[in-house]
Amino acid sequence: MDIKALWNLTYGVYVISTIDLDNGGRATGCIANSAMQVTYDTVAVSINHENYTNQCIKKSKKFAISILGQNADDNIIPVFGFQSGREVDKFRGIETKNINGLSVIADSTGYIICDVDDILETETHTVFLGKINDCGRLKDEPVMTYEYYHRVKKGKSPKTAPTYIEETPEHTELAYKCTVCGYVYKGDLTKEPDDYLCPICKQPKSVFVKL
Amino acid sequence: MDIKALWNLTYGVYVISTIDLDNGGRATGCIANSAMQVTYDTVAVSINHENYTNQCIKKSKKFAISILGQNADDNIIPVFGFQSGREVDKFRGIETKNINGLSVIADSTGYIICDVDDILETETHTVFLGKINDCGRLKDEPVMTYEYYHRVKKGKSPKTAPTYIEETPEHTELAYKCTVCGYVYKGDLTKEPDDYLCPICKQPKSVFVKL
Repeated sequence: MDIKALWNLTYGVYVISTIDLDNGGRATGCIANSAMQVTYDTVAVSINHENYTNQCIKKSKKFAISILGQNADDNIIPVFGFQSGREVDKFRGIETKNINGLSVIADSTGYIICDVDDILETETHTVFLGKINDCGRLKDEPVMTYEYYHRVKKGKSPKTAPTYIEETPEHTELAYKCTVCGYVYKGDLTKEPDDYLCPICKQPKSVFVKL
Repeated sequence: MDIKALWNLTYGVYVISTIDLDNGGRATGCIANSAMQVTYDTVAVSINHENYTNQCIKKSKKFAISILGQNADDNIIPVFGFQSGREVDKFRGIETKNINGLSVIADSTGYIICDVDDILETETHTVFLGKINDCGRLKDEPVMTYEYYHRVKKGKSPKTAPTYIEETPEHTELAYKCTVCGYVYKGDLTKEPDDYLCPICKQPKSVFVKL
């Protein structure tokens, strides 16, 4: 079984947002790449049980998909992908549009607003089937594919993503790991300028440990 | 509701194959773009009720995903996407590899072999949740994304695809439709050479009707 075959499945990069009814109805959300259209008016998204967004969707019974573009603000993925809505108001400082009561990322190519129609539980993830009640386009730019995020943005998956695979820097002599988000820098980090920041979570060089 | 927002979801192009137990166990399959990893060892695929492959998977309880690459033989999509396994042996003349009893397209970037673990029914489609029992890579080439298929290969969706939208040549004066696969040619078809073939189903100019 060559698990790398799974890397050839194609995905986009999305922010799945919902309402946190236990926190005064504030918006919360997470990054997902596993989203697909199922019928002409339903979509499916897969969200890890450990993601706070999962339990919030179960309570609010609604979610929005913001479809990120290639030029999306570099902070969106770290903000939504590498911290928890349990502790943080992820939408603070993020420009949004309110569509049918849900917060959509203004800096995205478009949105799909859904009511939860059905769910399918697996050991680690919930597949939410959402009936589309609205959708629209916001920006005309190429969408960010998961492949683009990895290849061009050098991004990593959160540990809760179905596609997460532990990084093992097999073929490099030297590598450093960001202790905040897990990003692995391959090569000699000491040669980077002093103001180098982790490309994912924007933490300084000092949070990296040598592998 | 601007349904074109849904076109910004990102997909690959896959052949979903299974065993046709009502036809001596021969291989059958169809094209799908709605496939995603759900947990580290499960994937979900969405298949229309009208696809013969749907009922065959329900009986055999197994399926394979062949992940098409950008250089996949141009015939694979018309063969698997625009005819029915009820009438045709789709795998005749297609080079395959037998993996755990399932036929995988040899000319693909890789495969994922699954046992059906759960299903989720919608009005028009079944979402099959498949437990991966094997997967592997076959060819090192860029995968064919749905966007690439449309933009570069000028491909169309079968009517049973979740992503199918009726073609309405709003902005062109002149258009022709292939009566076999539904491909819409925008412009003056009479200016094409006599040996012009439909880019999808390879039928001659004579099967086109003016819209």
